[in-house]
Amino acid sequence: VVVGAGFGGIAAVRALRRAPVEVILVDRQNYHLFSPLLYQVAAALLDPSAIAQPVRALLRRIRNARMWMAEVTHVDLERKVLSTRQGEIEYDYLLLAAGSVTNYFGNQSAAELALPLKGLPDALAVRNRILTNFEQARWTDDTVERRRLLTVAIVGGGPTGVEFAGSLSELVRNVLRKDFPGMDLGEVRVLLLEAGDSLLTAFAPRLRRAAEGALRRKGVEIRYRALVQQVAPESLELASGERMAVGAVVWTAGVRAPQLGAGLGLPVDRAGAVQVEPTLQLPGHPEVFVVGDMAALEQDGRRLPMLAPVAQQEARRAARNIVALEGGRPPQPFRYFDKGIMAAIGRNSGLAQVGPFGLSGFIGWAGWLFVHLLLIVSLRNRLFVFLGWTWDYLFLDRPVRLILRASQKARPEKFHHDGGDVEH
Amino acid sequence: VVVGAGFGGIAAVRALRRAPVEVILVDRQNYHLFSPLLYQVAAALLDPSAIAQPVRALLRRIRNARMWMAEVTHVDLERKVLSTRQGEIEYDYLLLAAGSVTNYFGNQSAAELALPLKGLPDALAVRNRILTNFEQARWTDDTVERRRLLTVAIVGGGPTGVEFAGSLSELVRNVLRKDFPGMDLGEVRVLLLEAGDSLLTAFAPRLRRAAEGALRRKGVEIRYRALVQQVAPESLELASGERMAVGAVVWTAGVRAPQLGAGLGLPVDRAGAVQVEPTLQLPGHPEVFVVGDMAALEQDGRRLPMLAPVAQQEARRAARNIVALEGGRPPQPFRYFDKGIMAAIGRNSGLAQVGPFGLSGFIGWAGWLFVHLLLIVSLRNRLFVFLGWTWDYLFLDRPVRLILRASQKARPEKFHHDGGDVEH
Repeated sequence: VVVGAGFGGIAAVRALRRAPVEVILVDRQNYHLFSPLLYQVAAALLDPSAIAQPVRALLRRIRNARMWMAEVTHVDLERKVLSTRQGEIEYDYLLLAAGSVTNYFGNQSAAELALPLKGLPDALAVRNRILTNFEQARWTDDTVERRRLLTVAIVGGGPTGVEFAGSLSELVRNVLRKDFPGMDLGEVRVLLLEAGDSLLTAFAPRLRRAAEGALRRKGVEIRYRALVQQVAPESLELASGERMAVGAVVWTAGVRAPQLGAGLGLPVDRAGAVQVEPTLQLPGHPEVFVVGDMAALEQDGRRLPMLAPVAQQEARRAARNIVALEGGRPPQPFRYFDKGIMAAIGRNSGLAQVGPFGLSGFIGWAGWLFVHLLLIVSLRNRLFVFLGWTWDYLFLDRPVRLILRASQKARPEKFHHDGGDVEH
Repeated sequence: VVVGAGFGGIAAVRALRRAPVEVILVDRQNYHLFSPLLYQVAAALLDPSAIAQPVRALLRRIRNARMWMAEVTHVDLERKVLSTRQGEIEYDYLLLAAGSVTNYFGNQSAAELALPLKGLPDALAVRNRILTNFEQARWTDDTVERRRLLTVAIVGGGPTGVEFAGSLSELVRNVLRKDFPGMDLGEVRVLLLEAGDSLLTAFAPRLRRAAEGALRRKGVEIRYRALVQQVAPESLELASGERMAVGAVVWTAGVRAPQLGAGLGLPVDRAGAVQVEPTLQLPGHPEVFVVGDMAALEQDGRRLPMLAPVAQQEARRAARNIVALEGGRPPQPFRYFDKGIMAAIGRNSGLAQVGPFGLSGFIGWAGWLFVHLLLIVSLRNRLFVFLGWTWDYLFLDRPVRLILRASQKARPEKFHHDGGDVEH
C-alpha cells in the first residue's frame, strides 16, 4: 500500500510496475498535483487542470496498481492495517509518502486567518480573495480602506513566497492595471515578509541578490527580520510591534509533516518528520517505508531538503528495497543525487543552481521554463501549461482571473476536499 | 446602468460603445459565461475558464463602459437608484438583463437537495458530486448501495437535460469505465426524467425522435410522464408513487426570472418575467428597459423563448432605443429574427432546426460544433474549447475530471459566489 499520490507516491507506483506485487495507492484527492506551479494558479496564470492529473489516468497502464480514494487517519503497525475515513486496508508493505502540510509554527491566529498555498483549493482561495479585494476596492471612497484591500502580505521568503510575489506583482501591473482603469498603482502593495536576513537560503548569495533585485524591480516590497506575530482579519502585527493593514495574508513560511507521522508514536524531528533508517525503513518495522517530506534523513551531516526530486529518488529506492526484501535480499541505503534547484521570479527572470554553478536573469528563467515543461507528467498538461505561459507572455493577459468556487449544496459528508490543510 | 453581464448585458454594452453615454455594467460575478457549454463543465469535458471570460477583459476596449461587481438587491424606480450589497448606483437609463434562475416549481425538497445546472459553481458541484460518488462506490461491498451511488437522475428533458445526459453517459462509458477497472457498467444508470410526453419540445417531432434514439444508444434511460414529487438525500419519489435510489439529482427542469423583477411591483408572468412594452420598456417607466429571460414579450401570439439570441437581439434593440430617446426620437418595437435552434447529444449526434429545415445525426452534430465554436466570445476560449473537444474526441479522455473546490478559509462576507442560484 502506497499512501499519497504526490511525487513520491507516483514514483513508487511506477517503480513497482513490473514487480511481482499488487499495489494499492491511497490519496484523499483524485489528482496528482504538479505543485511547483501551484503559485501560478493562485496568480491566475494557469487553470487548475493544467497542473493536476487524475490519479486514475496515471494508473491506467500500470496493471498491478489500483487507486482507493480515502483520507488516511491512522496506521496500526502491529496489525498491519491502514485506517481511513472510508474503511480499512491491510498491507504487507507500507510506503508512506503523504507529503507535508502548512506549518504555522504554533501561530494560532495565522492558522485561522492566513491563506495557505499548499494545495489546489488553497490556490483557488488565494486567487478568489485577491480578485475579490480588487473588486471591492472599486467601491471604496475611503483611501485608507482601499489601500488595505489592495495590500497583499506574503509571509515567507522561500521559493513559494518569492515565486508567488513575482507572479502576483505582474498580475497586478500587467493585467489588473488594465482591468481597472483609473486605479492608482501606488495604492497597491505586494509585501514579502521574511523572518530571517535573506530570501531563498538554499541558493548561493549571488543568486539571492539577483532574486532580490528582480523582485524589487517588479515592485515587490521586501522586509527582512519581519516575523509575523499576530494575524487579524484586516491587519497583521510583526514581532517588532509594527502593525500593517492588509487585504490578504498568504502564508508560505514553511511546511511540516502531517500528523500521521507523529501518530505512529515514533521519533519525529522538529518539522514532524519521521526518523528513518538509511534504507528508508521505519526503525523496528522493516515492512514500513517513509519517503519524501514525511521522512527525516540526513546525508553528509545535513537534513535532506523537502523537494520533489528527493521524494522521487527516495520512492524509487524504497520500491527497489521492497522488491529486494520480497526476493530475500537485503535493502540498500538511500543516496540522494542532487541535480540542482531552480526558481522563477516572473517574466524574464529566474535562478538555477547546479552544484557550484549558478544562473540568473533571462537565462535562468529560460532554463526554468524548459525544465518545468519537461517535468510535467502528461502531454496534455504540458501543452496547456505552454499555451498558458505563451498567452501571458505575448498578450500580458491572464484569462483565468475568475472569482469562482464550486457550489456546496448538499455535498456528501464522507469525503473532505476543503482546504489543502489537515490542521487549522 | 446595465444589470447582468450575460448575453443580453454584454450585447447592450457593445451596442452602446459609440453612443454618447456612460455605461456602468453591474454583475455579481466577475465573468461572462458562455452558458450553452456549461453542461460540458459538469461532464468534466471543459475547464471553467474555457467558457468564462472576465468581464473586465471584455470591456477593455469599450471606452465608455465600466464594470462594478455587485449583487443587485432592489431597484427604486422613483428615485432612479439601484441598490446593491456593495452600495447604491444612480441611473438615467436602466437596462435589466439579469437572466434567470433555476425554477423548482415550488418543490421545496428539490430546492434543498437537487443540484441545479445554471452557473459555473453549480457545474463544478455536479462534477464533484458524480466523481466523488464513483470513488465512494469503489469502497462499497453492498450492491444496492453501490447501484445507488452510480445512479444519476437528470430532471427535465429540455436542451440542458438532454445534452448533459448524453455527455455524462459518455463520460461514464468512455472515460470512467477505464478509470475503474472491474466496474460493472450494468450498475451505472443515467436517468432522464421528463414530466411531459416528449423531449426537446421546441424541436420538430422527427428531430425529437432522433434525439431520443441517440440518447438510448448511449445508454441513457428515458422516463416520460415522470414528475418528481419529492427529493430526499439518497432517493427521489415520482408523482406516480415510484421511489428510486439515486446518488445525485441534477435539476434542469426549468428556469424563472430572478426575484428582482417581481420586486419591482410590476406585472410578471408565471415564470416571474416582467411584462414589457413592444419597445422593451417598462410600462410607465420609459427609462427602464428589460431584456432576455427577465422580459416577457409575445410575438405572433407566442411568448419569445428564453434563448441567448433573443436576449442579444433585444439588448441591441433596447440600446438603440436608449440612443433614440436621448436624441429625442421615438423608440422602435422589437422584432425577433429566429436563426434556428440546435442541440448536441454527445459524440457524433446533434440536432439543428432552422425554420422548416431540420438536421440530425452526424451532420447536425458537426453543425453544432461549428456554430458554437464561432459563437464563443474570445479567441483564447475558442482555442481552449477546440482543444478540449479534440482531446475528448481523439483520446476518449477527459483530463478535467478533478474533484476540486476552492478552500473557504476566512472568506470575505460581502460578496457571495456560492451557487449560481439566488433562491434555495
